[in-house]
Amino acid sequence: MKVGFIGTGVMGTGMIKNLIKADFDVTVYNRTKTHADAAVAAGAKWSDSPKELASQSDVIISIVGFPTDVEDVYFSEHSVFAGAKPGTIVIDMTTSSPSLAEKIGAKAEELKLEALDAPVSGGDLGAKNGTLTIMVGGKEETYEKVLPLFEAMGKSMHLFGSYGSGQRTKLANQIMIAGTMLGMSETLVFAEKAGLNSEDVINTLSGGSAENWSLSNYGPRILKGDFEPGFYIKHFIKDLRLAIEEADAMQIDLPMLKLAKQLYTKLQDEDNLGNAGTQALIKYYRP
Amino acid sequence: MKVGFIGTGVMGTGMIKNLIKADFDVTVYNRTKTHADAAVAAGAKWSDSPKELASQSDVIISIVGFPTDVEDVYFSEHSVFAGAKPGTIVIDMTTSSPSLAEKIGAKAEELKLEALDAPVSGGDLGAKNGTLTIMVGGKEETYEKVLPLFEAMGKSMHLFGSYGSGQRTKLANQIMIAGTMLGMSETLVFAEKAGLNSEDVINTLSGGSAENWSLSNYGPRILKGDFEPGFYIKHFIKDLRLAIEEADAMQIDLPMLKLAKQLYTKLQDEDNLGNAGTQALIKYYRP
Repeated sequence: MKVGFIGTGVMGTGMIKNLIKADFDVTVYNRTKTHADAAVAAGAKWSDSPKELASQSDVIISIVGFPTDVEDVYFSEHSVFAGAKPGTIVIDMTTSSPSLAEKIGAKAEELKLEALDAPVSGGDLGAKNGTLTIMVGGKEETYEKVLPLFEAMGKSMHLFGSYGSGQRTKLANQIMIAGTMLGMSETLVFAEKAGLNSEDVINTLSGGSAENWSLSNYGPRILKGDFEPGFYIKHFIKDLRLAIEEADAMQIDLPMLKLAKQLYTKLQDEDNLGNAGTQALIKYYRP
Repeated sequence: MKVGFIGTGVMGTGMIKNLIKADFDVTVYNRTKTHADAAVAAGAKWSDSPKELASQSDVIISIVGFPTDVEDVYFSEHSVFAGAKPGTIVIDMTTSSPSLAEKIGAKAEELKLEALDAPVSGGDLGAKNGTLTIMVGGKEETYEKVLPLFEAMGKSMHLFGSYGSGQRTKLANQIMIAGTMLGMSETLVFAEKAGLNSEDVINTLSGGSAENWSLSNYGPRILKGDFEPGFYIKHFIKDLRLAIEEADAMQIDLPMLKLAKQLYTKLQDEDNLGNAGTQALIKYYRP
């Protein structure tokens, strides 16, 4: 199975290495060619455009930055849809809008291709270790065909429904994380101000009903002053925006989600922290 | 060691049974006598007032409803402080205000008593199974003396500092839970409206970086329509109010915490849900 992979960022590079390790034949494209060096060094071939890549592949996987980048990759002049042969499977693994996933699905059917939306969680470490969670939307028969690819990249994967369902599940995931990040930040700043030992607080809270992944994983990094991105604030803001747009379209009001977007946006716009990790939310509260 | 126990609610009764199981000699008092029937049936003796109870005990434990109840138990006419002999240890395990814990500590010293604040997390099941987390404030020497009592009731306990530190840690715990409850509710209502299978969403999210205790434990109850109280909304509102008062006093603004209190207060005041479990927060979002 010839795999074309678009997007050799932190996530993509880890996923490509795991595909190669599982003996898939991988060709890559990235907007900035030098960023594909690690993937090429690991054994991937290079292609000069999404169109050329698509014409040579059985399956195309994309994981890029923003929905506009996804639009470019699939719908622009030198895009995947300009090059893919009938029967090719396209999988967008970017966290992107459910409606764009539906649009890709419809266009793929028109071109006699198959499409899945398959965003992931688990971050850079999950990509590197092949332990991603993969949330999939599309047709069952397509899902079954590419399961070996998913299994090379992830430890858990599930088909949630038709086009866009993977994206909707990922957005639900991000809403949950917004809650744990807000809760963790307010908890830690409260503990600090109250003169408690924050490490003891994290340990105690992690053993009870306040327990959550953000507190156990980001809490200790915050105490060390480590704000390096496991996941960028700028990308989380994009996800929160997509979730709010989707909630608005469904006519539900989610005030916690809006609050999270507001605080993160302030950090990005006023404190220039878009390239920091999401755990830097605590800086909103610290004077 | 003769233990006097004040408050035979759901939490207290479980804790009393575990103290009796560990061979402590337990006498109980409760405002409504019939609510002590289960404790008495388990082998506890009855006393007619906190004052009388205190005069016969080496250690007094209280776990009642609200800070005003704690005030009553310790400072009113027939209270603990009216009856306790020098050398007695008093432990308030109610989630109450840090400043009241400091006041109890100061008064205890004046009367040659010892005091700890020691609120718990882990809910009714933790109380029943002896697996509570106990967050303690007070003097180390006092903590050491009553450790066998704590070990009979909890699986994890820690001394966080002087009077009020147990309460401050418990409030930090409640802030964290406010975040997971808000996040979970908005996640589940988003998933429902998006037409996703909520059970699959909970399972998938629980395996990744959105993972948290509230989602794993309350999520399935919500899907079953089970809003029985593991923890009452009316008590959670009290905790959130205490946390906000404390944050205000420390001059920190915690908008997520305020939002949580606002939504829960609406459920209590407008929808009459004060006696429902905290997982009923999702009803705020459902039309």
